[in-house]
Amino acid sequence: MPKVTQEHLDARRTEILDGARRAFAKHGYAGATVARLEEEIGLSRGAIFHYFESKLDLFVELAVAENRRYQRVLAEEGVEAVLRALAAADPQWLTVFIETEVRLWHDAELEQRMASPEQEELLIAGLSRAQAEGRLRTDVELVALVDFASIVVNGLALRVAGGGDPIDIDSLVGLVDDALRPREPR
Amino acid sequence: MPKVTQEHLDARRTEILDGARRAFAKHGYAGATVARLEEEIGLSRGAIFHYFESKLDLFVELAVAENRRYQRVLAEEGVEAVLRALAAADPQWLTVFIETEVRLWHDAELEQRMASPEQEELLIAGLSRAQAEGRLRTDVELVALVDFASIVVNGLALRVAGGGDPIDIDSLVGLVDDALRPREPR
Repeated sequence: MPKVTQEHLDARRTEILDGARRAFAKHGYAGATVARLEEEIGLSRGAIFHYFESKLDLFVELAVAENRRYQRVLAEEGVEAVLRALAAADPQWLTVFIETEVRLWHDAELEQRMASPEQEELLIAGLSRAQAEGRLRTDVELVALVDFASIVVNGLALRVAGGGDPIDIDSLVGLVDDALRPREPR
Repeated sequence: MPKVTQEHLDARRTEILDGARRAFAKHGYAGATVARLEEEIGLSRGAIFHYFESKLDLFVELAVAENRRYQRVLAEEGVEAVLRALAAADPQWLTVFIETEVRLWHDAELEQRMASPEQEELLIAGLSRAQAEGRLRTDVELVALVDFASIVVNGLALRVAGGGDPIDIDSLVGLVDDALRPREPR
Protein backbone atom coordinates (compact mmCIF):
# COMPACT_ATOMS: atom_id res chain seq x y z
CA MET A 1 0.00 0.00 0.00
CA PRO A 2 1.49 3.37 -0.96
CA LYS A 3 2.16 5.78 1.84
CA VAL A 4 -0.46 8.57 1.95
CA THR A 5 1.02 11.79 3.23
CA GLN A 6 -0.89 14.40 5.21
CA GLU A 7 -0.12 16.78 2.38
CA HIS A 8 -1.88 14.50 -0.04
CA LEU A 9 -4.92 14.18 2.24
CA ASP A 10 -5.16 17.95 2.65
CA ALA A 11 -4.87 18.53 -1.10
CA ARG A 12 -7.63 16.01 -1.73
CA ARG A 13 -9.92 17.66 0.85
CA THR A 14 -9.32 21.07 -0.72
CA GLU A 15 -10.03 19.67 -4.18
CA ILE A 16 -13.33 18.19 -2.95
CA LEU A 17 -14.36 21.40 -1.17
CA ASP A 18 -13.57 23.56 -4.22
CA GLY A 19 -15.65 21.32 -6.48
CA ALA A 20 -18.51 21.16 -3.97
CA ARG A 21 -18.55 24.92 -3.76
CA ARG A 22 -18.84 25.17 -7.55
CA ALA A 23 -21.64 22.59 -7.55
CA PHE A 24 -23.59 24.42 -4.80
CA ALA A 25 -23.14 27.76 -6.57
CA LYS A 26 -24.27 26.31 -9.91
CA HIS A 27 -27.23 24.21 -8.75
CA GLY A 28 -28.19 25.53 -5.29
CA TYR A 29 -27.95 23.32 -2.20
CA ALA A 30 -30.98 21.17 -3.00
CA GLY A 31 -30.07 20.93 -6.69
CA ALA A 32 -26.49 19.80 -6.00
CA THR A 33 -27.25 16.07 -6.24
CA VAL A 34 -24.57 13.48 -5.52
CA ALA A 35 -24.23 12.91 -9.28
CA ARG A 36 -23.61 16.63 -9.83
CA LEU A 37 -21.14 16.75 -6.94
CA GLU A 38 -19.26 13.84 -8.55
CA GLU A 39 -19.23 15.62 -11.89
CA GLU A 40 -18.02 18.95 -10.54
CA ILE A 41 -15.48 17.46 -8.13
CA GLY A 42 -14.26 14.85 -10.62
CA LEU A 43 -14.24 12.04 -8.06
CA SER A 44 -16.59 9.15 -7.30
CA ARG A 45 -19.10 9.36 -4.45
CA GLY A 46 -17.03 6.71 -2.66
CA ALA A 47 -13.97 8.97 -2.71
CA ILE A 48 -15.94 12.10 -1.76
CA PHE A 49 -17.74 10.55 1.18
CA HIS A 50 -14.55 8.95 2.39
CA TYR A 51 -13.45 12.48 3.29
CA PHE A 52 -16.82 13.99 4.28
CA GLU A 53 -19.70 12.31 6.03
CA SER A 54 -22.50 13.85 3.97
CA LYS A 55 -23.49 16.60 1.60
CA LEU A 56 -24.55 18.70 4.58
CA ASP A 57 -21.10 18.16 6.05
CA LEU A 58 -19.49 19.49 2.89
CA PHE A 59 -21.73 22.51 2.99
CA VAL A 60 -21.17 23.26 6.66
CA GLU A 61 -17.41 23.08 6.18
CA LEU A 62 -17.59 25.57 3.30
CA ALA A 63 -20.04 27.86 5.09
CA VAL A 64 -18.06 27.91 8.34
CA ALA A 65 -14.86 28.74 6.44
CA GLU A 66 -16.66 31.50 4.53
CA ASN A 67 -18.16 32.97 7.69
CA ARG A 68 -14.78 32.98 9.42
CA ARG A 69 -13.07 34.53 6.44
CA TYR A 70 -15.47 37.49 6.46
CA GLN A 71 -15.32 37.82 10.23
CA ARG A 72 -11.52 37.82 10.09
CA VAL A 73 -11.52 40.53 7.42
CA LEU A 74 -14.00 42.51 9.54
CA ALA A 75 -11.84 42.17 12.66
CA GLU A 76 -8.49 42.84 10.97
CA GLU A 77 -9.25 45.19 8.09
CA GLY A 78 -12.58 46.77 9.09
CA VAL A 79 -16.07 47.08 7.65
CA GLU A 80 -14.94 48.75 4.43
CA ALA A 81 -12.82 45.73 3.44
CA VAL A 82 -15.71 43.31 4.09
CA LEU A 83 -18.14 45.41 2.06
CA ARG A 84 -15.71 45.52 -0.87
CA ALA A 85 -15.11 41.76 -0.65
CA LEU A 86 -18.85 41.07 -0.62
CA ALA A 87 -19.53 43.38 -3.56
CA ALA A 88 -16.97 41.38 -5.56
CA ALA A 89 -18.20 37.96 -4.35
CA ASP A 90 -19.84 35.31 -6.54
CA PRO A 91 -23.59 36.06 -6.28
CA GLN A 92 -24.53 32.43 -6.85
CA TRP A 93 -22.44 31.21 -3.98
CA LEU A 94 -23.75 34.01 -1.75
CA THR A 95 -27.26 32.85 -2.62
CA VAL A 96 -26.60 29.34 -1.37
CA PHE A 97 -24.88 30.73 1.66
CA ILE A 98 -27.82 32.92 2.64
CA GLU A 99 -30.38 30.22 1.93
CA THR A 100 -28.53 28.07 4.38
CA GLU A 101 -28.17 30.81 6.98
CA VAL A 102 -31.95 31.03 6.79
CA ARG A 103 -32.26 27.25 7.24
CA LEU A 104 -30.20 27.53 10.43
CA TRP A 105 -33.12 29.31 12.05
CA HIS A 106 -35.01 26.01 12.09
CA ASP A 107 -32.07 23.75 12.84
CA ALA A 108 -30.46 24.15 16.26
CA GLU A 109 -27.80 21.47 15.63
CA LEU A 110 -26.66 23.10 12.42
CA GLU A 111 -26.65 26.50 14.11
CA GLN A 112 -24.43 25.08 16.84
CA ARG A 113 -21.96 23.77 14.26
CA MET A 114 -21.84 27.13 12.48
CA ALA A 115 -21.34 29.21 15.62
CA SER A 116 -17.87 30.63 16.25
CA PRO A 117 -17.72 32.42 19.60
CA GLU A 118 -13.93 32.84 19.38
CA GLN A 119 -14.42 34.77 16.12
CA GLU A 120 -16.82 37.12 17.86
CA GLU A 121 -14.15 37.80 20.45
CA LEU A 122 -11.66 38.54 17.67
CA LEU A 123 -14.17 40.95 16.16
CA ILE A 124 -14.69 42.81 19.42
CA ALA A 125 -10.91 42.96 19.90
CA GLY A 126 -10.42 44.28 16.36
CA LEU A 127 -13.01 47.01 16.80
CA SER A 128 -11.66 48.01 20.21
CA ARG A 129 -8.26 48.38 18.58
CA ALA A 130 -9.80 50.55 15.84
CA GLN A 131 -11.32 52.74 18.55
CA ALA A 132 -7.99 53.00 20.39
CA GLU A 133 -6.26 53.98 17.14
CA GLY A 134 -8.83 56.66 16.36
CA ARG A 135 -10.32 54.92 13.32
CA LEU A 136 -13.71 54.18 14.93
CA ARG A 137 -16.00 56.44 16.96
CA THR A 138 -16.03 55.94 20.72
CA ASP A 139 -19.18 57.90 21.60
CA VAL A 140 -21.45 54.92 20.77
CA GLU A 141 -21.38 51.60 22.62
CA LEU A 142 -19.18 49.02 20.90
CA VAL A 143 -22.03 46.49 20.75
CA ALA A 144 -24.13 48.99 18.79
CA LEU A 145 -21.26 49.52 16.33
CA VAL A 146 -20.92 45.74 15.92
CA ASP A 147 -24.67 45.44 15.30
CA PHE A 148 -24.65 48.24 12.74
CA ALA A 149 -21.67 46.70 10.91
CA SER A 150 -23.27 43.22 10.84
CA ILE A 151 -26.57 44.61 9.62
CA VAL A 152 -24.93 46.47 6.72
CA VAL A 153 -22.78 43.44 5.86
CA ASN A 154 -25.77 41.06 5.88
CA GLY A 155 -27.95 43.53 3.99
CA LEU A 156 -25.28 43.86 1.30
CA ALA A 157 -24.89 40.06 1.09
CA LEU A 158 -28.66 39.79 0.51
CA ARG A 159 -28.49 42.48 -2.16
CA VAL A 160 -25.56 40.94 -4.03
CA ALA A 161 -27.10 37.46 -3.79
CA GLY A 162 -30.44 38.76 -5.11
CA GLY A 163 -28.81 40.12 -8.25
CA GLY A 164 -30.28 43.22 -9.82
CA ASP A 165 -28.45 46.46 -10.51
CA PRO A 166 -24.80 46.58 -9.47
CA ILE A 167 -24.13 48.55 -6.32
CA ASP A 168 -22.05 51.75 -6.16
CA ILE A 169 -19.70 50.33 -3.58
CA ASP A 170 -17.64 53.53 -3.13
CA SER A 171 -20.75 55.48 -2.13
CA LEU A 172 -21.89 52.72 0.21
CA VAL A 173 -18.47 52.58 1.88
CA GLY A 174 -18.51 56.38 2.19
CA LEU A 175 -21.93 56.41 3.88
CA VAL A 176 -20.93 53.65 6.30
CA ASP A 177 -17.72 55.52 7.06
CA ASP A 178 -19.74 58.67 7.81
CA ALA A 179 -21.68 56.65 10.39
CA LEU A 180 -18.64 55.02 12.01
CA ARG A 181 -15.69 57.39 11.98
CA PRO A 182 -14.75 59.37 15.08
CA ARG A 183 -16.80 62.53 15.60
CA GLU A 184 -15.03 65.82 15.53
CA PRO A 185 -15.77 67.94 18.58
CA ARG A 186 -18.21 70.73 17.67
CA MET B 1 -79.97 32.90 -2.23
CA PRO B 2 -79.00 35.65 0.23
CA LYS B 3 -77.39 38.71 -1.26
CA VAL B 4 -73.64 38.76 -0.60
CA THR B 5 -72.37 42.31 -0.21
CA GLN B 6 -68.91 43.49 -1.27
CA GLU B 7 -68.37 44.40 2.37
CA HIS B 8 -69.00 40.81 3.39
CA LEU B 9 -66.61 39.51 0.73
CA ASP B 10 -63.87 41.92 1.82
CA ALA B 11 -64.32 41.01 5.48
CA ARG B 12 -64.04 37.33 4.62
CA ARG B 13 -60.87 37.88 2.59
CA THR B 14 -59.31 39.83 5.46
CA GLU B 15 -60.27 37.09 7.91
CA ILE B 16 -58.62 34.47 5.69
CA LEU B 17 -55.47 36.52 5.19
CA ASP B 18 -55.11 37.22 8.93
CA GLY B 19 -55.44 33.52 9.76
CA ALA B 20 -53.05 32.52 6.98
CA ARG B 21 -50.48 34.97 8.28
CA ARG B 22 -50.72 33.43 11.75
CA ALA B 23 -50.38 29.94 10.28
CA PHE B 24 -47.30 30.90 8.22
CA ALA B 25 -45.68 32.61 11.21
CA LYS B 26 -46.38 29.63 13.46
CA HIS B 27 -45.41 26.80 11.12
CA GLY B 28 -43.28 28.36 8.35
CA TYR B 29 -44.40 28.34 4.73
CA ALA B 30 -43.75 24.64 4.11
CA GLY B 31 -45.17 23.64 7.50
CA ALA B 32 -48.42 25.54 7.00
CA THR B 33 -50.37 22.60 5.62
CA VAL B 34 -53.91 23.00 4.37
CA ALA B 35 -55.17 21.37 7.60
CA ARG B 36 -53.24 23.93 9.65
CA LEU B 37 -54.50 26.79 7.49
CA GLU B 38 -58.07 25.56 8.09
CA GLU B 39 -57.44 25.37 11.82
CA GLU B 40 -55.92 28.83 12.11
CA ILE B 41 -58.37 30.52 9.75
CA GLY B 42 -61.40 28.70 11.16
CA LEU B 43 -62.85 27.91 7.73
CA SER B 44 -62.90 24.82 5.52
CA ARG B 45 -60.48 24.42 2.63
CA GLY B 46 -63.45 24.80 0.30
CA ALA B 47 -64.21 28.23 1.69
CA ILE B 48 -60.55 29.31 1.80
CA PHE B 49 -59.78 28.28 -1.78
CA HIS B 50 -62.99 29.86 -2.99
CA TYR B 51 -61.30 33.20 -2.22
CA PHE B 52 -57.68 32.34 -3.07
CA GLU B 53 -56.38 30.04 -5.77
CA SER B 54 -53.64 28.37 -3.75
CA LYS B 55 -51.50 28.51 -0.66
CA LEU B 56 -48.84 30.34 -2.69
CA ASP B 57 -51.49 32.86 -3.69
CA LEU B 58 -52.31 33.52 -0.05
CA PHE B 59 -48.67 34.00 0.70
CA VAL B 60 -47.97 36.31 -2.23
CA GLU B 61 -50.94 38.50 -1.27
CA LEU B 62 -49.61 38.81 2.29
CA ALA B 63 -46.01 39.36 1.19
CA VAL B 64 -46.91 41.98 -1.40
CA ALA B 65 -48.99 43.88 1.16
CA GLU B 66 -46.15 43.69 3.68
CA ASN B 67 -43.57 44.87 1.17
CA ARG B 68 -45.75 47.81 0.15
CA ARG B 69 -46.44 48.73 3.74
CA TYR B 70 -42.73 49.04 4.52
CA GLN B 71 -42.01 50.82 1.25
CA ARG B 72 -44.79 53.31 1.99
CA VAL B 73 -43.42 53.96 5.48
CA LEU B 74 -39.95 54.42 3.95
CA ALA B 75 -41.26 56.88 1.33
CA GLU B 76 -43.52 58.85 3.67
CA GLU B 77 -41.85 58.70 7.08
CA GLY B 78 -38.24 57.89 6.25
CA VAL B 79 -35.71 55.19 7.11
CA GLU B 80 -35.95 55.73 10.86
CA ALA B 81 -39.65 54.83 10.91
CA VAL B 82 -39.06 51.64 8.91
CA LEU B 83 -36.21 50.55 11.18
CA ARG B 84 -38.36 51.08 14.26
CA ALA B 85 -41.28 49.19 12.68
CA LEU B 86 -39.00 46.27 11.78
CA ALA B 87 -37.44 46.13 15.24
CA ALA B 88 -40.96 45.76 16.66
CA ALA B 89 -42.15 43.25 14.04
CA ASP B 90 -43.06 39.62 14.70
CA PRO B 91 -39.77 37.70 14.17
CA GLN B 92 -41.59 34.55 13.10
CA TRP B 93 -43.48 36.31 10.36
CA LEU B 94 -40.31 38.10 9.22
CA THR B 95 -38.65 34.68 8.98
CA VAL B 96 -41.29 33.38 6.59
CA PHE B 97 -41.12 36.61 4.67
CA ILE B 98 -37.35 36.44 4.16
CA GLU B 99 -37.41 32.74 3.35
CA THR B 100 -39.78 33.56 0.56
CA GLU B 101 -37.82 36.57 -0.64
CA VAL B 102 -34.94 34.14 -1.01
CA ARG B 103 -37.14 31.71 -2.96
CA LEU B 104 -37.96 34.51 -5.40
CA TRP B 105 -34.37 34.34 -6.63
CA HIS B 106 -35.19 31.02 -8.28
CA ASP B 107 -38.72 31.86 -9.40
CA ALA B 108 -39.10 34.52 -12.07
CA GLU B 109 -42.91 34.35 -12.12
CA LEU B 110 -43.18 34.86 -8.39
CA GLU B 111 -40.65 37.68 -8.57
CA GLN B 112 -42.78 39.34 -11.25
CA ARG B 113 -45.87 39.13 -9.02
CA MET B 114 -44.00 40.63 -6.06
CA ALA B 115 -42.49 43.54 -8.01
CA SER B 116 -43.97 46.97 -7.43
CA PRO B 117 -42.36 49.55 -9.73
CA GLU B 118 -44.87 52.25 -8.75
CA GLN B 119 -43.76 51.85 -5.12
CA GLU B 120 -40.17 52.43 -6.16
CA GLU B 121 -41.23 55.66 -7.82
CA LEU B 122 -42.99 56.70 -4.61
CA LEU B 123 -39.81 55.95 -2.68
CA ILE B 124 -37.66 58.06 -4.99
CA ALA B 125 -40.24 60.87 -4.77
CA GLY B 126 -40.30 60.65 -0.96
CA LEU B 127 -36.52 60.81 -0.69
CA SER B 128 -36.28 63.69 -3.18
CA ARG B 129 -38.77 65.56 -1.00
CA ALA B 130 -36.65 64.80 2.08
CA GLN B 131 -33.64 66.25 0.25
CA ALA B 132 -35.59 69.36 -0.77
CA GLU B 133 -36.73 69.84 2.83
CA GLY B 134 -33.19 69.53 4.18
CA ARG B 135 -33.76 66.22 6.01
CA LEU B 136 -31.53 64.15 3.72
CA ARG B 137 -28.04 64.86 2.40
CA THR B 138 -27.73 66.01 -1.21
CA ASP B 139 -23.99 65.52 -1.72
CA VAL B 140 -24.44 61.80 -2.52
CA GLU B 141 -26.42 60.45 -5.50
CA LEU B 142 -30.01 59.61 -4.61
CA VAL B 143 -29.64 56.04 -5.91
CA ALA B 144 -26.75 55.46 -3.49
CA LEU B 145 -28.91 56.74 -0.60
CA VAL B 146 -31.74 54.40 -1.67
CA ASP B 147 -29.30 51.47 -1.84
CA PHE B 148 -27.87 52.24 1.59
CA ALA B 149 -31.35 52.52 3.11
CA SER B 150 -32.52 49.23 1.55
CA ILE B 151 -29.37 47.44 2.67
CA VAL B 152 -29.80 48.56 6.28
CA VAL B 153 -33.53 47.72 6.21
CA ASN B 154 -32.91 44.23 4.79
CA GLY B 155 -30.00 43.61 7.13
CA LEU B 156 -32.16 44.52 10.11
CA ALA B 157 -35.00 42.29 8.86
CA LEU B 158 -32.52 39.39 8.68
CA ARG B 159 -31.29 40.14 12.16
CA VAL B 160 -34.74 40.37 13.73
CA ALA B 161 -35.89 37.24 11.89
CA GLY B 162 -32.82 35.33 13.06
CA GLY B 163 -33.61 36.01 16.69
CA GLY B 164 -30.71 36.41 19.09
CA ASP B 165 -30.02 39.39 21.31
CA PRO B 166 -32.43 42.31 21.01
CA ILE B 167 -31.11 45.24 19.05
CA ASP B 168 -30.46 48.71 20.50
CA ILE B 169 -32.71 50.41 17.97
CA ASP B 170 -32.02 53.98 19.16
CA SER B 171 -28.29 53.53 18.54
CA LEU B 172 -28.92 51.96 15.16
CA VAL B 173 -31.23 54.80 14.13
CA GLY B 174 -28.62 57.32 15.34
CA LEU B 175 -25.85 55.73 13.28
CA VAL B 176 -28.02 55.61 10.16
CA ASP B 177 -28.99 59.22 10.72
CA ASP B 178 -25.30 60.17 10.97
CA ALA B 179 -24.82 58.61 7.53
CA LEU B 180 -27.85 60.24 5.91
CA ARG B 181 -28.43 63.69 7.33
CA PRO B 182 -27.30 66.79 5.46
CA ARG B 183 -23.63 67.65 5.89
CA GLU B 184 -22.76 70.93 7.49
CA PRO B 185 -20.33 72.95 5.43
CA ARG B 186 -16.84 72.72 6.94
